[in-house]
Amino acid sequence: MSPDPRGTGLFIAGVRGAVATTVVHGLEGLRAGTPPVGLVTASPPFAHLPWEPAAGLHVCGWDVAGNLHRSAEELGRTHVIPEDLVELCAELRDRIELGLAPGIPDPEDVAAVDPGARARLELAPRAAVEALREDIRGWKRALGLQRGVVIYLASVERQRGLPAGWDDANGDPLALLERAPRELSRSLLYGAAAVAEGCPFINFTPAPGPAVAALAGMARRAGVPVLGNDGKTGETLVKTVLAPLFRDRALNVLAWEGYNMLGNRDGAALSDPERRAAKIQNKDRVLASILGNARAHTHVGIDFVPSLHDWKTAWDFIHFEGFLGARMSLQFTWHGSDSALAAPLVIDLSRIALRAQDRGEGGLLPAAAPFFKNPVGVTEHDFHRQMDMFRRWCAR
Amino acid sequence: MSPDPRGTGLFIAGVRGAVATTVVHGLEGLRAGTPPVGLVTASPPFAHLPWEPAAGLHVCGWDVAGNLHRSAEELGRTHVIPEDLVELCAELRDRIELGLAPGIPDPEDVAAVDPGARARLELAPRAAVEALREDIRGWKRALGLQRGVVIYLASVERQRGLPAGWDDANGDPLALLERAPRELSRSLLYGAAAVAEGCPFINFTPAPGPAVAALAGMARRAGVPVLGNDGKTGETLVKTVLAPLFRDRALNVLAWEGYNMLGNRDGAALSDPERRAAKIQNKDRVLASILGNARAHTHVGIDFVPSLHDWKTAWDFIHFEGFLGARMSLQFTWHGSDSALAAPLVIDLSRIALRAQDRGEGGLLPAAAPFFKNPVGVTEHDFHRQMDMFRRWCAR
Amino acid sequence: MSPDPRGTGLFIAGVRGAVATTVVHGLEGLRAGTPPVGLVTASPPFAHLPWEPAAGLHVCGWDVAGNLHRSAEELGRTHVIPEDLVELCAELRDRIELGLAPGIPDPEDVAAVDPGARARLELAPRAAVEALREDIRGWKRALGLQRGVVIYLASVERQRGLPAGWDDANGDPLALLERAPRELSRSLLYGAAAVAEGCPFINFTPAPGPAVAALAGMARRAGVPVLGNDGKTGETLVKTVLAPLFRDRALNVLAWEGYNMLGNRDGAALSDPERRAAKIQNKDRVLASILGNARAHTHVGIDFVPSLHDWKTAWDFIHFEGFLGARMSLQFTWHGSDSALAAPLVIDLSRIALRAQDRGEGGLLPAAAPFFKNPVGVTEHDFHRQMDMFRRWCAR
Amino acid sequence: MSPDPRGTGLFIAGVRGAVATTVVHGLEGLRAGTPPVGLVTASPPFAHLPWEPAAGLHVCGWDVAGNLHRSAEELGRTHVIPEDLVELCAELRDRIELGLAPGIPDPEDVAAVDPGARARLELAPRAAVEALREDIRGWKRALGLQRGVVIYLASVERQRGLPAGWDDANGDPLALLERAPRELSRSLLYGAAAVAEGCPFINFTPAPGPAVAALAGMARRAGVPVLGNDGKTGETLVKTVLAPLFRDRALNVLAWEGYNMLGNRDGAALSDPERRAAKIQNKDRVLASILGNARAHTHVGIDFVPSLHDWKTAWDFIHFEGFLGARMSLQFTWHGSDSALAAPLVIDLSRIALRAQDRGEGGLLPAAAPFFKNPVGVTEHDFHRQMDMFRRWCAR
Repeated sequence: MSPDPRGTGLFIAGVRGAVATTVVHGLEGLRAGTPPVGLVTASPPFAHLPWEPAAGLHVCGWDVAGNLHRSAEELGRTHVIPEDLVELCAELRDRIELGLAPGIPDPEDVAAVDPGARARLELAPRAAVEALREDIRGWKRALGLQRGVVIYLASVERQRGLPAGWDDANGDPLALLERAPRELSRSLLYGAAAVAEGCPFINFTPAPGPAVAALAGMARRAGVPVLGNDGKTGETLVKTVLAPLFRDRALNVLAWEGYNMLGNRDGAALSDPERRAAKIQNKDRVLASILGNARAHTHVGIDFVPSLHDWKTAWDFIHFEGFLGARMSLQFTWHGSDSALAAPLVIDLSRIALRAQDRGEGGLLPAAAPFFKNPVGVTEHDFHRQMDMFRRWCAR
Repeated sequence: MSPDPRGTGLFIAGVRGAVATTVVHGLEGLRAGTPPVGLVTASPPFAHLPWEPAAGLHVCGWDVAGNLHRSAEELGRTHVIPEDLVELCAELRDRIELGLAPGIPDPEDVAAVDPGARARLELAPRAAVEALREDIRGWKRALGLQRGVVIYLASVERQRGLPAGWDDANGDPLALLERAPRELSRSLLYGAAAVAEGCPFINFTPAPGPAVAALAGMARRAGVPVLGNDGKTGETLVKTVLAPLFRDRALNVLAWEGYNMLGNRDGAALSDPERRAAKIQNKDRVLASILGNARAHTHVGIDFVPSLHDWKTAWDFIHFEGFLGARMSLQFTWHGSDSALAAPLVIDLSRIALRAQDRGEGGLLPAAAPFFKNPVGVTEHDFHRQMDMFRRWCAR
Repeated sequence: MSPDPRGTGLFIAGVRGAVATTVVHGLEGLRAGTPPVGLVTASPPFAHLPWEPAAGLHVCGWDVAGNLHRSAEELGRTHVIPEDLVELCAELRDRIELGLAPGIPDPEDVAAVDPGARARLELAPRAAVEALREDIRGWKRALGLQRGVVIYLASVERQRGLPAGWDDANGDPLALLERAPRELSRSLLYGAAAVAEGCPFINFTPAPGPAVAALAGMARRAGVPVLGNDGKTGETLVKTVLAPLFRDRALNVLAWEGYNMLGNRDGAALSDPERRAAKIQNKDRVLASILGNARAHTHVGIDFVPSLHDWKTAWDFIHFEGFLGARMSLQFTWHGSDSALAAPLVIDLSRIALRAQDRGEGGLLPAAAPFFKNPVGVTEHDFHRQMDMFRRWCAR
Repeated sequence: MSPDPRGTGLFIAGVRGAVATTVVHGLEGLRAGTPPVGLVTASPPFAHLPWEPAAGLHVCGWDVAGNLHRSAEELGRTHVIPEDLVELCAELRDRIELGLAPGIPDPEDVAAVDPGARARLELAPRAAVEALREDIRGWKRALGLQRGVVIYLASVERQRGLPAGWDDANGDPLALLERAPRELSRSLLYGAAAVAEGCPFINFTPAPGPAVAALAGMARRAGVPVLGNDGKTGETLVKTVLAPLFRDRALNVLAWEGYNMLGNRDGAALSDPERRAAKIQNKDRVLASILGNARAHTHVGIDFVPSLHDWKTAWDFIHFEGFLGARMSLQFTWHGSDSALAAPLVIDLSRIALRAQDRGEGGLLPAAAPFFKNPVGVTEHDFHRQMDMFRRWCAR
């Protein structure tokens, strides 16, 4: 990559994962003229706004294991990325692999990670953050990038308690890290490094990140936007689109049972019940919020079905009561590529975060709500109302 | 508004049909304390508004054939209306049958109608309207009703051309009727009679009614609201809720195929392709409007499946393209009682029409858009935006 | 065979459950002329055989809690049994309640059972069996029945280990019971009592019953048929019908994921993972047996969804590979009343068991395989091959 | 049987179509070691029989338009054939294109066909057959093939009347062709040519072919097997697997509604109602035959949805009644590649036809029933019983 002085870095934690791999190839496809399907910021009502152009976005990143070529080949073979685009991007992947920095693994994953990542696990949290900051500065220097966004796309992590002090909006994360345990959520390490380097932080996973008051407070004070949590790409998206129908027609939802199946790395991680818990909570809570009906029986299941690879397939069954007690049902089957759905949103969110930063909007960004299962700083889960918030923000 | 203690008439064309029968029993159920599930005007954000109370609404009406007891028993047997409520309302049905006036049949249905209705077919259009007006005045007198709403719930009629003059907002329907052919849409006869009697007119069918400029103009001049067309109760409702998702996520809908099955009188009427045409058009056009995508392949089928009775079952298949050309799909199966879905909307619309009349809003009422497949005077089909229009109207 | 004019008892463990309640009303319906839909022994190829007529079958039974009237009313309200039939059978239910004997509860259920059942829990296993035998003799005496069948329809029990000696086909259950622990599967108590009284024993649940060698051996020696295990009524039935398609077309099943939802007492019991285990095993194992494909990923889930009551709703997703690796899928949604599906099979199985006894066929009855998820003494799970076995048995 | 070392020709009418293209690539894949998924004759119970090896089968054929390279590329792009296999077979396709003979188009298609095919349309039927025979002899000579099979894979043709004399099993097709009209079904021309040349004839389409008595009689007298009609690959296959479940459980099917969507050349042809009729009849009649229930409401729809290409997607809704009138439903969605499902059956049927010929079995071959929607000479539509017939034939 020849230095682009006006360019912007997408610094991705989990850069060899399926979503990041699709982002890498997608940006190249967009440069080559692929229509920007799935990219909200390129669609009619928003396309004219001064977003960062695709050509100006350069991916670098961290990972704890894996290989970008292998990821790309699997996505090609399973029809997520066109196979000719996979071939076309071989050199680009080589360059990203060369510039790749070791990620900070979860302690429980130590056996499965690269030596470099294992070494980083030795670092105390404060030192780990400094290493991440040095990575960011290094990429900027090496590629001549003027600015960047940190995007957290790591595998779903276990739910961990929050150490004392972090729930205080006036707490200083860098100071708190001095005495933090090693089991701290990785999203806080990447988030703190991002904000300290003046980079907007986007948490596309269910990890806490910007939901932690100290991190959000630091970001607000620094004028750096922090966005999250947990990208809303598939079944949950449909849920937050459909649930308002029942509310607005005064229909009484008796049960909403959702069964998700997927077979990618994310699916494998989610077969660990400790990792699954946060995700299920995010997928489930949206219903109670929209329906305002505490009596509805709801259930969210996630099963690992290897043959599906990246192709999330979900079935939802909604049992509801209408006038005079008539029992009715709506069921839907969603079949979509998780990565093809997530990747354009990562680009959208990067553009939105950069624009917010340009406009001086630090801290939580409620306008990004329609992109997240658990939007921080927002209680509204109705997708249409979230889109209204986003439209108003764009129009400002 | 202070609702008149002597009550309001719901004058229904098609009063022995499944929807009207459900309205009759539903009002009685509401009086007896059945929770108002499915009734928008009784749900939290709207319940406090001064709507006409259920206890003040009294059903009278016209029909060309059938029997209200038989309709009720079939709806009881097929689990649309609780069987004890069917029993409870036997006397009420007797009273409605006693007061029932003959409807004006379509010429092609003459063989299948009651003698009274056959006699009305002899009347010239202008005379037929006078007969309908006399019915309205008669019911008011007999039941001591101060006012009323006319609701058009007749079986789907064939598409017919519009005679000259009717597309002029300044045309006078009563004068135009003097020279109108007998094949005129029945919705214009009932609509003209309603407006002439100062009754709001609600067209719950795909017939033209308020979409005809002369009728809408007469209503506006008279300060009488006219609402329509074609109640949005099931599959089309879901369509207008889901389609915005694809638009707002910039996903490219390639095909949207909808298959509807139903087995009630409406289903039987719709097995006639000439009657089906208007309904299919209404169900189909919403997609192009919301998606703004002329290239999407769309299809709407309606099949008569007798064993389903009132339980409309529909399957929609949505084939769409995402980022980098990935092909995905969403399919849903809707299973609901058409009458249980429509009946509360008929009550809602009556209340809305009465309130509009109280507020002096004559002519087309765009705020009623979320209730119709083909809302007259409104180009917006996105259900959520229609609900926003309705909410703003309520808040005024 | 000449059916005894004085009738045959159906002695049901779990006589107040939904299935037994449906049997009670169904027999009455059949006597009154309801067409025998769902009754295999009344369908064309089998109807001419000398089965016990419905009029000769009289239900008696045991239960640990509940009330037959309440069960019937719930099944009426949820449209499993026609409401007029529920009314019609009030006296019949009174008689059954009057003759009802206390069942033997599982120790862990003691808090939720009737006092009579609690008292029976005090009995040692051998004494409990004697009490059951006395019940059978008492019913025969009281109703003048010449013979009977014991049908085990109790709620799903926890999986329990089998005490020493029971896996020996020459073991004597009555002797083994002398030293058996109180945690013994109730199916062995009812099974031993049935065989000791010369009554065929039908185990419609996943409990071990006839799969235990000592019980099967005793039955063989006594010339008493024992049938089981676990009635095949819904999703598993469809599985064993569809799986042969993939085998016979040489299609490679990659994954078969089944999600079951139900809301009746069985559903509630199955929310206990210890009780669910045996059922899931039975539902799952059929696939490996038919497909002969150890690599297919399979999953069976059962969730308790109260609003569904007796209406089991299941979704199965089958991911398979065809020629040149093409990935395809078949998904189905099953929506059926568990009790309406099970009840006629209970009658069928009673007739089959009686006929086997008449023909002198004691012990396991492989010909009953198509009726069970886990047919004892049979390795074939392909429904069509099982039906061939049954047809040949009938033709003998 | 000792397979001829110099090989066997698969002479395909419609050799540039999607199914034939998949056969071409599939045979090459099998030679290269691709596992024979979907190939019945290669699956465990049949694999040991002396079938013609894949390496001995060589494709030649006729077509009226199109291009084999374009067909292959589209099937590669739409994930039916692996893209590397498409690349690998470029030379093979060149050879087939070089040896290709013009097909005999339907008169109504004249505008859309190649000049060579247009020229053949000038030939009288008898002369056309001689041209086809000369093609077969030419391919044999050119490739040194000892024998061959003719497979009819042309686009669905319009239903046409049968001229006098053809319904006589003693009629001589070659003589009847002398006075036949030009609108004769093309399947009779290819069938007569095949039999006259001693090649078994397989009709994979709904055209009449072997169902015509004169053709079947000629084949029987000549000792040449003729197989058909209409390959059973997807939704109809599932129907004939599932329908026996309802019959065998004495469940009363009220309605069976099937909706098929596809987007390939076959789908385009089927948008012509005159072409669709025969196919729908074949898909529909299986139900009445299996269920023996003339009262069930059945419907089969086929819609052309271009974006699906070869990926047939079908939804079937089965409404049925169980014990005491309980209303239940089963619905399924089938999503499979038509060509990937059909191609291995074409190879299977060729092997079966050759083996029948070796065994001296001329005329109709009832044992091939499980492969056809409308098996000639067989009234049985139950897939499992058809497989039993096939297994017995194999074991002979």
